[in-house]
Amino acid sequence: MRHFLQLSYDGTAYHGWQIQPNADTVQARLDSALSTLLRQPIHSVGAGRTDTGVHAKMMVAHFDSPGGFDEADLCRRLTRMLPSDIAVAQIVRVPDDAHARFDAIRRTYHYDILLQKNPFRRHFATRIHYALQFEQMNTAAALLLGTHDFSSFCKSGTQTKTNRCTVYEARWMPIESGMYRFRISADRFLRNMVRAIVGTLFTVGNGRLTIADFQRVLSAADRGAAGESAPAEGLSLVEVAYPTELFQPV
Amino acid sequence: MRHFLQLSYDGTAYHGWQIQPNADTVQARLDSALSTLLRQPIHSVGAGRTDTGVHAKMMVAHFDSPGGFDEADLCRRLTRMLPSDIAVAQIVRVPDDAHARFDAIRRTYHYDILLQKNPFRRHFATRIHYALQFEQMNTAAALLLGTHDFSSFCKSGTQTKTNRCTVYEARWMPIESGMYRFRISADRFLRNMVRAIVGTLFTVGNGRLTIADFQRVLSAADRGAAGESAPAEGLSLVEVAYPTELFQPV
Repeated sequence: MRHFLQLSYDGTAYHGWQIQPNADTVQARLDSALSTLLRQPIHSVGAGRTDTGVHAKMMVAHFDSPGGFDEADLCRRLTRMLPSDIAVAQIVRVPDDAHARFDAIRRTYHYDILLQKNPFRRHFATRIHYALQFEQMNTAAALLLGTHDFSSFCKSGTQTKTNRCTVYEARWMPIESGMYRFRISADRFLRNMVRAIVGTLFTVGNGRLTIADFQRVLSAADRGAAGESAPAEGLSLVEVAYPTELFQPV
Repeated sequence: MRHFLQLSYDGTAYHGWQIQPNADTVQARLDSALSTLLRQPIHSVGAGRTDTGVHAKMMVAHFDSPGGFDEADLCRRLTRMLPSDIAVAQIVRVPDDAHARFDAIRRTYHYDILLQKNPFRRHFATRIHYALQFEQMNTAAALLLGTHDFSSFCKSGTQTKTNRCTVYEARWMPIESGMYRFRISADRFLRNMVRAIVGTLFTVGNGRLTIADFQRVLSAADRGAAGESAPAEGLSLVEVAYPTELFQPV
């Protein structure tokens, strides 16, 4: 039977989510703990991947097992077994064909920045040393709303059938003194997309790119067009949404 | 001339505030950076000391120099020179006899705890694995208000003329899901006092100590009477208050 598992992690110490040879990844830690507790090899499937150093307030993965365990109990034991930078919030039974990646209808990321040095937020936000015009950045961000080809903001060499994504929300907001957050929701994200968007918005914010320039970058649908990617530490996956019928009692 | 300097730090990596031989301390870092920038040996005097691993959202120190610098500019250069876990918020001119420690009239600490695993708060809060009755803990905490001899909550062997302190505020409050904060304000604190109080309140919260027991611990004025000290990582000095006339233009 299949279960969805909801987890959070501080990605600082990991080579991202996705399991890979010779690297410490969140998925490798999760699969290893699940396999130990369920006494059989478990291979989870994530809702997506987060890159090296990127965090998740809420990542979702599914896994198959013969069942026979109490979900809340497994959740507790898993959280106890995993290192202090990974926590499991919930494990729920889903239909056997529910898929953590293909059934996700919306993902939301936060990119947090610090305009002044902050010893307490430094692990989860990027320090910016120049002034930013947030109104300009929000005018540019609004151009992302709706359905577009996001190739300009996609890591070159990535193979996907289409680079079209629908962005539902994209805006900067102050969250505390000296700290701003970029919140972006879409049906899907291409590799490196949020960091490429944020990096390019920085160049709008500091005046090197006009709103019209930003529009041209987006329309170009060509990776060379965008600015540098913003650093990993400010980025967190904060929500993965599914159709509610997926969580009806099975 | 004398200046007050307001700083914050993540204490995780330091052997506390106070300068000492063969140990990395916040004051040692500060004095070294100040001495470099002002090109003469500077010895700061802190409002108090924080122990190994304890944080400060706001610590105050004073230092003397021949002056001749712009305060805002020194503040920026100092913050740039100090490591990422220490930030200087403000430097202000004060009268030559103003004293960071002796003139402080009120200090406030927060002790933050996590009732569930939280990868993002773990550096600045203590994870508690048992249930706590916060109402009981607040009834006990209220007994601390006013002026008492706090010897029961003082590190044994500490030499002070008197162990009397006046507590203005002492209560637990929820701050976010699965997270509680103990906030305590007093005119002064003895060494280890907050952590000894919090550790003893934990034993009230888990039912091992009654309110009457807690009252007896306080009245005993004897260090052996209190419970174990709570770990350092949950503790932050959050405010040091001075009479406003100290900050009038000199």
